[in-house]
Amino acid sequence: MLDYLLHGTPAQQRRAMAKAITLLESTRPDHRREADALLNALLPHTGQAFRLGISGVPGVGKSTFIEALGLYLIGQGHRVAVLAVDPSSSVSGGSILGDKTRMEHLSVHEHAYIRPSPSGGNLGGVAAKTREAMLVCEAAGYDIVIVETVGVGQSETAVADMTDMFCVLQLPNAGDDLQAIKKGIMELADLVVINKADLDPDAATRAQAQITSALRLLGLHGRPETAHHDETLWHPRVIQLSALQGRGVDAFWQAVSDFRRLQQANGRLAARRQRQARAWMWERIDSGLREAFAHHAAVRERLPQLTEAVLAGRMVASAAARSLLSAFFHAPPMGGDATPSPSLNDRSL
Amino acid sequence: MLDYLLHGTPAQQRRAMAKAITLLESTRPDHRREADALLNALLPHTGQAFRLGISGVPGVGKSTFIEALGLYLIGQGHRVAVLAVDPSSSVSGGSILGDKTRMEHLSVHEHAYIRPSPSGGNLGGVAAKTREAMLVCEAAGYDIVIVETVGVGQSETAVADMTDMFCVLQLPNAGDDLQAIKKGIMELADLVVINKADLDPDAATRAQAQITSALRLLGLHGRPETAHHDETLWHPRVIQLSALQGRGVDAFWQAVSDFRRLQQANGRLAARRQRQARAWMWERIDSGLREAFAHHAAVRERLPQLTEAVLAGRMVASAAARSLLSAFFHAPPMGGDATPSPSLNDRSL
Repeated sequence: MLDYLLHGTPAQQRRAMAKAITLLESTRPDHRREADALLNALLPHTGQAFRLGISGVPGVGKSTFIEALGLYLIGQGHRVAVLAVDPSSSVSGGSILGDKTRMEHLSVHEHAYIRPSPSGGNLGGVAAKTREAMLVCEAAGYDIVIVETVGVGQSETAVADMTDMFCVLQLPNAGDDLQAIKKGIMELADLVVINKADLDPDAATRAQAQITSALRLLGLHGRPETAHHDETLWHPRVIQLSALQGRGVDAFWQAVSDFRRLQQANGRLAARRQRQARAWMWERIDSGLREAFAHHAAVRERLPQLTEAVLAGRMVASAAARSLLSAFFHAPPMGGDATPSPSLNDRSL
Repeated sequence: MLDYLLHGTPAQQRRAMAKAITLLESTRPDHRREADALLNALLPHTGQAFRLGISGVPGVGKSTFIEALGLYLIGQGHRVAVLAVDPSSSVSGGSILGDKTRMEHLSVHEHAYIRPSPSGGNLGGVAAKTREAMLVCEAAGYDIVIVETVGVGQSETAVADMTDMFCVLQLPNAGDDLQAIKKGIMELADLVVINKADLDPDAATRAQAQITSALRLLGLHGRPETAHHDETLWHPRVIQLSALQGRGVDAFWQAVSDFRRLQQANGRLAARRQRQARAWMWERIDSGLREAFAHHAAVRERLPQLTEAVLAGRMVASAAARSLLSAFFHAPPMGGDATPSPSLNDRSL
């Protein structure tokens, strides 16, 4: 599989990628061990791609934009992979459709690879699978990886945390009608795109000015601690675009290229990836610890009533936490005999 | 102690509060058990106060404002406690000074109680101690608890997460000179106060208009998903004030009272406290799990080299996490014999 992945023909690569990603998404312990071996083997062949996160609410024209962008990039000699993070996909079948009719020209192109969101599990699990899939795409030589997401829960944060650049697509309403932007999302944006600008050019221009000024005002435009414009730092931009008419895609890519060049020169691209890798490791550790905690017999027995006591104001939250931690570390995991387990340092609480 | 705390004279109460809070801040295991017993005993006497969070950078006039507000509230028959969350206090002695000369009139008033930030430990620990101290103040009959913080790290989020209402103080610069606001802080604000408005009334008025419009535009002004103004929901306000001249304190308190009445009527006050209590419990659990993890012998042995391998791109972060979790759950905590410990559900990773 690794050999086909790295050196196969495009068709062999696509089959190997699909197989590899399916393996990564498996929950069987033996598959998981195989997957870890595969990941570590392909790691030296990863990291060369540019990782671009794209977010926007349904209706903003995300698919049309990504298809236009993908075909533009292939025209420039790139190979483009499109992945998705959609934590709703396990419940509803997903807001980001898995079927390939969504990007009909891009999906059939031999230099494009499109994969729907992994389904099942919480956002952390979905994000981890997508990060791993991204490494598979990079090892297979895809040099632009686009990770798209829809505004569900904290999925934008997850995508911003796995990409080199995070772009937010926005509709061109303006003034009092301006569609309110989801709380917290603008502080993630490296680039804001007013899509469908052709529908109302005046509104798009006003929206562009308003968002630019709001970003500056709320400290989201460059570093909050300085009022000076530092040329070595990226200041988030707001641009207009019409994906349907294919207008503005080149300007978009110019902004992305400017960002990439600047971030490479000032060392922030590498620093961001290191920060992401460290945070990803700790996120998986925290998630594994909490999972083991939630499955522990003594915890499962006590958690409902302690939670209820905390919510009803009969018990202080920190005392309930100490009681549950004590059960976790000192009671047997399966209700059998008491056996030593990782010791709890009481001072740490 | 509990009796003096609940039923003593103001002087007896203050001594009992100081003793109780010192006990809560102790790291000795026997003190911690005593403290938990005390907390659970006083819990039925808590929760009646209004919890007000106040944040602002150094120089914005936070102390002058809190002193003016405190004296105003005491004049209205309230009893006022002032606590602080300052995670830098263990390193530098703190940006929020512990000495009482800072609020000289308020600190000597018998209906006021001022306590500096607990020092030492990480932000989660500092915040947990302050939450517990808040309960002590409430049990002693303080019906307004003010928790102040300075913009260090995530301390604003911690304070917003333990209070009923979160206010941000801001200086009245405007236009291009407008001081950039710290990233992410505006989305926490229920009320923004332009302090020192007397210095430049025109600038203050422009700043008020600009921040109001930026809040609305970025979805921070009411619910992001609706463009309608819903009268049952609070929409963050921006007001002007001059704490030094004592102007605007009544208008500030009017806004706080409007907020409190609305949040009580629509059920969001109670819901926010429940959400906070649940999050606080889980934050303490996560922190305790991570602390035990970091102190585990097998983890300590492997963590440096695995972290380095992840940062250098030689190992996938999720694989490193799985390897460390496996060491934590399957290796003995102290390097002794292998003994069963909480079982790891591999599928959960």
